[in-house]
Parts: sequence; structure tokens; C-alpha cells
Amino acid sequence: MTSQRILDFFKTRQPEGPCLVVDLDVVAGNFKAFRHALPDSHIYYAVKANPAPEVLRLLAGLGSNFDCASVAEIEMALDAGATAARISFGNTIKKERDVARAHALGVNLFAVDSHEEVEKIARAAPGARVFCRVLTNGEGAEWPLSRKFGCVPQMAVDVLVYAHQLGLESFGVSFHVGSQMTKVDAWDAALADAKRVFVSLAKQGIELKMVNMGGGFPTKYLKDVPTAQAYGQAIFASLSRHFGNRIPMTIIEPGRGMVGNAGVIKSEVVLISKKSDNDEHRWVFLDIGKFGGLAETMDEAIRYPIRTERDADDMGLCVLAGPTCDSADVMYEKNMYPLPLSLTIGDEVLIEGTGAYTTTYSAVAFNGFEPLKSYCI
Amino acid sequence: MTSQRILDFFKTRQPEGPCLVVDLDVVAGNFKAFRHALPDSHIYYAVKANPAPEVLRLLAGLGSNFDCASVAEIEMALDAGATAARISFGNTIKKERDVARAHALGVNLFAVDSHEEVEKIARAAPGARVFCRVLTNGEGAEWPLSRKFGCVPQMAVDVLVYAHQLGLESFGVSFHVGSQMTKVDAWDAALADAKRVFVSLAKQGIELKMVNMGGGFPTKYLKDVPTAQAYGQAIFASLSRHFGNRIPMTIIEPGRGMVGNAGVIKSEVVLISKKSDNDEHRWVFLDIGKFGGLAETMDEAIRYPIRTERDADDMGLCVLAGPTCDSADVMYEKNMYPLPLSLTIGDEVLIEGTGAYTTTYSAVAFNGFEPLKSYCI
Repeated sequence: MTSQRILDFFKTRQPEGPCLVVDLDVVAGNFKAFRHALPDSHIYYAVKANPAPEVLRLLAGLGSNFDCASVAEIEMALDAGATAARISFGNTIKKERDVARAHALGVNLFAVDSHEEVEKIARAAPGARVFCRVLTNGEGAEWPLSRKFGCVPQMAVDVLVYAHQLGLESFGVSFHVGSQMTKVDAWDAALADAKRVFVSLAKQGIELKMVNMGGGFPTKYLKDVPTAQAYGQAIFASLSRHFGNRIPMTIIEPGRGMVGNAGVIKSEVVLISKKSDNDEHRWVFLDIGKFGGLAETMDEAIRYPIRTERDADDMGLCVLAGPTCDSADVMYEKNMYPLPLSLTIGDEVLIEGTGAYTTTYSAVAFNGFEPLKSYCI
Repeated sequence: MTSQRILDFFKTRQPEGPCLVVDLDVVAGNFKAFRHALPDSHIYYAVKANPAPEVLRLLAGLGSNFDCASVAEIEMALDAGATAARISFGNTIKKERDVARAHALGVNLFAVDSHEEVEKIARAAPGARVFCRVLTNGEGAEWPLSRKFGCVPQMAVDVLVYAHQLGLESFGVSFHVGSQMTKVDAWDAALADAKRVFVSLAKQGIELKMVNMGGGFPTKYLKDVPTAQAYGQAIFASLSRHFGNRIPMTIIEPGRGMVGNAGVIKSEVVLISKKSDNDEHRWVFLDIGKFGGLAETMDEAIRYPIRTERDADDMGLCVLAGPTCDSADVMYEKNMYPLPLSLTIGDEVLIEGTGAYTTTYSAVAFNGFEPLKSYCI
């Protein structure tokens, strides 16, 4: 999975300390795969997955739109060359003054999932377009999807009617099937819900125009995942099934699926030891852990592929942990990780599939360790 | 729990966005309480709990020593006025080149828990003092203690003999009873283990001189915790029981107990909403969450006191969540949090007991949100 360009970078640059390298060619390839798989959908890249300026500039140049979680992310997308018309303020939890700032920057598309948020937008961004997020169940997703975002479909109807009453443009419905979603048909039930909201609104004279089908597109970690093409076919079939020949404008918001497999973290083995002479398994400590960028190993949710120069040797299970003095800084323990028995202190390991949700998750300076460095090539 | 000085700071300075304010008078009071409770122990402040330069300078001035997790923390302690003789490199997981850097800075006291780490220190810091960390069970601790640090006592004996053979000074034993330890007698079993290691080493002609009793001293969150005095009495009783009238030099490493109750985070209510009309409970969203400094709410481990201006009103349980687009950014959901039913969007809330393990845990820029700001007064 590590591209030759990334291998060459590590070999020639030999950067000190843990770092992420992102291959922009892979990102460009992913963008094209999404466009090809869902040619009628508008791609809104989820900036939070990896907001590196080089990634944003590349995607802006390729014609991507941007799903932003904060005013800072909106400003980064604008700096990268996106126009405000290509930006969605996709966070359902916004300070009213941040709505006003976004609106002043020209942003006109906002996510909501409550009457209270609609009121803020009506006051701070009068006349703007809003879409209401509907709760889905997240079954089949590898990163936990809580009930944090969205409301039940019946309430979404009320929220969108209320937005209309307050002079906003009730534009559509959004949902999120859960991150690292490995079931291609996961979008079907949510699209059925979306259609029901469309119908209910139409009965009240409000014509919705858009379905934001969110992200959730997986990246390859250890297990193979379906292709963008397979997702595209399943989603198009569901759209046709539920909307017939009146398919609305659609949006997708890939983040992990856009950049995950484009990045590789280089780390170093700091210590290999046992806790007693009888211990069957080794503890392997790396110079990066849960607080240095691998936050998604929380509850051992995301299991990254790890590559070493000794992978042809015999393998043995080990506990994998980070370098801090925090006892919670352990990546894989319940489900131990196979690594070469010949692995040695000082060895370099490559943690693949780390292009998404690593750099910005990294702690500022926990235990005095620097945040994860990042290079785009 | 919020001091008048902190309340006055918020009132006069009105800082924008979430921020932590630390009252240095409270830190000084905590230091004096530890010194009074354990007058014969050397206090090594766990820098990772809060490495604010003002905190380090204050403690250096009061005569504290420093437990450091990295070279960066060692440099911060030196910058704050500590001499190298007052610094312990307490992380059992160190790169050999970091051991060499620390040694070059004059540090002469290192933690180990394995033969492999002893070898690094023998090469990079020849002749230095080492202490070996012994595994304890952590029962009664509120922050999870894994098996990450330490080795079984019998192996500690071997590790310290090995250190002696490699020309290091086998100086003592350390252990950690688990963070936010609420049982005052939790140190007893570990001190019994420490004594056994002393005896085994003495039989081989090696006289250990020090027991590092670690941290674990709690700060007051919602429940009352025993006083430093109560811990001091229990620990002194255990030391006497196990070591008789030959009590060795002892070290304690308070972090949370030194700064936890000195800090208060000011946050703002961004949204209060429900997911359906039938929802019994509200969701309350703050402008700080798990990725903005409240990482210790992971698995709902640490439960902070929250204070609002409406606390005299009727209370109702709510789910408490952070402002990011990450579905894992929920602080309290399984065990919901009581907040005033009159709480309103835009209200200020004070999150108390947040002086430890907040600022440096904060993500660099997750979702574009700035790291937690901090003021020491």
C-alpha cells in the first residue's frame, strides 16, 4: 500500500521522529475514482480528515467542493482556492457568531438537525440554504457512530418546515451511514428515509432539492474494502429505487475514503520488552501512539496495516503501545498485533492507511512530545 | 471549588473561546500540603500533568523536584529554574539518543522496567542511577491503569542486578498505584513488594536506597477525596510496617493532585436540542470536548464538576457532547449529567478540577478548532 514515491521520500529525506507523508497522486486518483463512480454527485471533501493546504489546493484544482466543520476550515478552503459557493458548513453544532462569520465569507449552505440551530441561521445567515441531518443506525461502520448528529425523520420534517417559515431555503436532507462503512448497501435505508422527508415536505408545498449522502466511504486497512465503483452502483440503484426518475441533486462527503490510503506514518521502535520471564507476548513500544496521531485506535477501532523490513521473518503477536507515560496510550492489546519476532529496538515501521484523521487529532504537546509532522509529496 | 481569583479573572478579562485558568495560589497550597503530609518524601512534580511555565517556575521556587516524561519536559524544568540534580527521567520508554541528551543535560536518575532499557542507559548514561518500576494492580483508581509500565517484582530484581553488572547505580524501586486513587491504603501492597525487592538485592550485595511511590494522589471532582494528610499517614504507616526503622529515601510524583483542583475551564453552551419530540433528555453541546482538552472523559472515566449560573434551578439529566463533527466526541452519555433545565444556548459553564491533563492533551487543530488556551494567575 505504501507508494514508491513515499518509500523514496523516506529513503532520501530520512526525517527525524514520527511523521506522516501523503502522496498527492493517490489523493488525485481517489478523487477521480469518486467522480467516476458517482458522476452525478457533487463531491464535498470532508476537510477535517486532512486539512493540509497541499491536499486542499489539489482538490480545489480538481473541482472538489468542501465540507467544513468550523470557520477555520472554511477559511482554509477559501485560501486553497475554493469559492464560497463550493463550501458547506456541515457541522450541526455552530455558535451563532460563527454562522454569521461564515455567511459574511459568502457561505450559503448550512447543516441543521434542530429547531434551535435553524433559529441561529435564520438570524445570522438570513435566506441561506439549510439541509437537515437525519439519524441513521451506523450498522456495519468500523468507527463508532453515536446518536450525536441528526434527528429522527419526522422531526426533520418539522425542522425543515420551521426553516421555511423563518425565511430560509429548506434545501434538502443529509445523513451519515457511519465512518469506514464496509457495506455498500448501507445507504439504502437512509435514502428511503430521505425520500419520505421529501414527500412530507412536498405535501406542505416545500420542494426539497438535495440529498447529502455524507461520507463513510472506507479506506483499505487490513481487510479489503469494496471499490468506489461498487459503492457508486449500489447508491445509484438505491436512488433510482426510492426517487424513480426524479433523482434530486446529490452530495457525497468523502474524507477517509479520499485521503486515508494516501498517507503513511513512519515510526520507530523505542522498546521491546516483557513484563515477566513467563510472558508469552512482547510489548512493542513505538514513538507514536494514541496521543500522537493514532487516536482512532481508541477502543482498538481502527486497525492499521504495519509494515517492517523484517516481514518475511516469523511473526508473533504483541501488545502495541505508544511512548507516553499515560497508561491509556496502548493501541492494540485485547486484539494483539502480529509483528516479526526479529523486530529490534530502533527499527523503522511504516503505519499505512494513515492519511486521514491523524495529524489534526495529534495532541499539542502531551508528555512534551511534538505533534505529528506532515509532508505532502 | 472555583476560586474567587479565577471568577474575577473571567469577569474582568472575558476571554473569547474555551480556556483554562490556573490559580497558582492553589498549586502552592497543594505543594505545601504534600510537604506537610509526607515531610520525609521528596516531591517530584509530574510535569506532564500541566507543564505551564508559570506552574513549573512556582514549583521550582518552592523546592520541588521534577518527574519528566521526555527531553522536552526536562528542558522545560531546567528553564523553570530546576537543576538537573532535581530531575528524574521517569518514562520507562526512551529512545537511546534521548537518554544521551538527558545525560548531557546533567540528568542522572532514570526509570527502567526491562533489561533492554538498562542496556540503553548503560551505553548512553554510564554510571547513572536507575530505579525499576514494579507492576501494581491499580484497583481503586479512576483513570485506567494498564499493564503498560513495570514488570513483576522477581523480574525487577533481575533488572536491577543487571544494571549493577553494567556499571549503573541500582538505586531503587518505583511503582504507581493508579491515577486518581481514592483508597489511602493502596500503597501498602506495593510497598510490601518494594521491600521484597530490597531484600533480594541485599542478598546479592546490592543496597537499594530509594522507593519512588509514584503519583495517584487524587483531586476533588464530584466526590470528596481523602486529604493529603490522610494519604501521608497511611503511607507512613505502611513504610514503617514494611521497612521498620530503616525507611529508605522516598519519592512521590503528584501531578493531578498538585494541579487538578487549581484549574477551571470556561466553556460556552453551543446548542441544546433533542433528537425527537419524544426524547426525554436533552443533548447539551459545549465548545470544548474530548479532542479540545477533555480527553480524560474517555470511557466517561473522569467526571468533572460543572458549574453554571443557573444551578439553583431544577436540574435534569442530559447527554453532554463536544463541538466537533466526530461522533466519538461525546463526554457523558451512558452516565448522563445533571444540568439546570433552564440552561440556555450561549450560557457560560465552568468545568472545575481541570488543571491537570487538559491543555497538553488538546488536539492541534481537530476540525479546525484551536487548542485549549491557558492562563496562570
